[in-house]
Amino acid sequence: MNQAPQKILQFESIDFQNMEKQYRTHLINCLSGAKSANLIGTIDQQGRENLSIVSSVVHIGADPALIAMVMRPHTVPRDTFENIQQTGFWTVNHVNSEIFHRAHQTSARYPKGVSEFTEVGLTPEYLNTFKAPYVTESNLKFGVELKEIIHLKINGTELVIGEIKHLIIPEKVLGKDGFIDLNLAGTVAVTGLDAYHELSALDRLPYAKAPRTDLIKP
Amino acid sequence: MNQAPQKILQFESIDFQNMEKQYRTHLINCLSGAKSANLIGTIDQQGRENLSIVSSVVHIGADPALIAMVMRPHTVPRDTFENIQQTGFWTVNHVNSEIFHRAHQTSARYPKGVSEFTEVGLTPEYLNTFKAPYVTESNLKFGVELKEIIHLKINGTELVIGEIKHLIIPEKVLGKDGFIDLNLAGTVAVTGLDAYHELSALDRLPYAKAPRTDLIKP
Repeated sequence: MNQAPQKILQFESIDFQNMEKQYRTHLINCLSGAKSANLIGTIDQQGRENLSIVSSVVHIGADPALIAMVMRPHTVPRDTFENIQQTGFWTVNHVNSEIFHRAHQTSARYPKGVSEFTEVGLTPEYLNTFKAPYVTESNLKFGVELKEIIHLKINGTELVIGEIKHLIIPEKVLGKDGFIDLNLAGTVAVTGLDAYHELSALDRLPYAKAPRTDLIKP
Repeated sequence: MNQAPQKILQFESIDFQNMEKQYRTHLINCLSGAKSANLIGTIDQQGRENLSIVSSVVHIGADPALIAMVMRPHTVPRDTFENIQQTGFWTVNHVNSEIFHRAHQTSARYPKGVSEFTEVGLTPEYLNTFKAPYVTESNLKFGVELKEIIHLKINGTELVIGEIKHLIIPEKVLGKDGFIDLNLAGTVAVTGLDAYHELSALDRLPYAKAPRTDLIKP
């Protein structure tokens, strides 16, 4: 980006409003940067399985271990949202570079009651009596219990908050300080609606400290 | 991950509770996967600048263009949170591979009133009369106006929701369909608290469609 003079574009609210809908959707979805690609596994009250890809999982806190995700109930993942409301449980399965095509395909609008596991070729598994299906082909996955759903009036989305109750992780990706090597786990990132990326490690940086100005005071 | 039999570890809630605090912090912060690395630029009512790195920016909607971020008001980015409450504006500046060391250093606890721009060596700039400072060294950046702060009682964090009002983007990273090439923009991802990664493109995938079962019905 530093080579030569380059043309810089600027957009304002009015420009967003005037954009063609699909163009705007692509553009705005890219602005939040790198996003996690996760498969959300659920069952309904009849035990029928559902799997959907979600890019909005966000860390809320470590103690208790809380995550959230933003769901738009009237679009494709509505089965996921309804299942979570019904059962109170879901799994989060990291998408890796071997399964990202199949993971993406779960975003298709399959008829109600059809299992995306079967349709895209991923394997459901039940671990440790947890009440939602995991994805066998995912290397790193965890089970979440619903704590709270917050309706965001501003655009009708739902913030679904849950506590991490159960974690499955290969020993070799877990470091001595608790850090997980997601490169080694094959975890991918998504940008926008449809672009998948491997993570290529730059560096881990030390805990940042300010200079101790107290030591240089007279 | 598919080579040989590997040891799989399982953890439950009780294990998280029994972990040493810093170990648990690392572990749980890694579970949400790839995260965006963004520098948040603000000013206080006296016009003093603040810059902090945040990994919780999440897409809320495209029309209107909404994003949110999760803030823990009693930890380091409290100046950012207070400034947003005071002024109602902030900038989001994508961290790229040339500035990630300096961006990370903004997480140090500098004394109140000290500008992280100056301390870490990044340049504030004011564009288009927007009431918060951008980072010159960031290639892709946008200005946000506060819409709502939702207090998450479950752990005392705050969900800060805003509307994207102003976008600055190099022409060459913006595709014809609105997709932004974040690899080309140099945007990095963060995992856990301190690990930075470049994005290495796998593929863009087409809009997923289910087979048209209506066409094969008798």
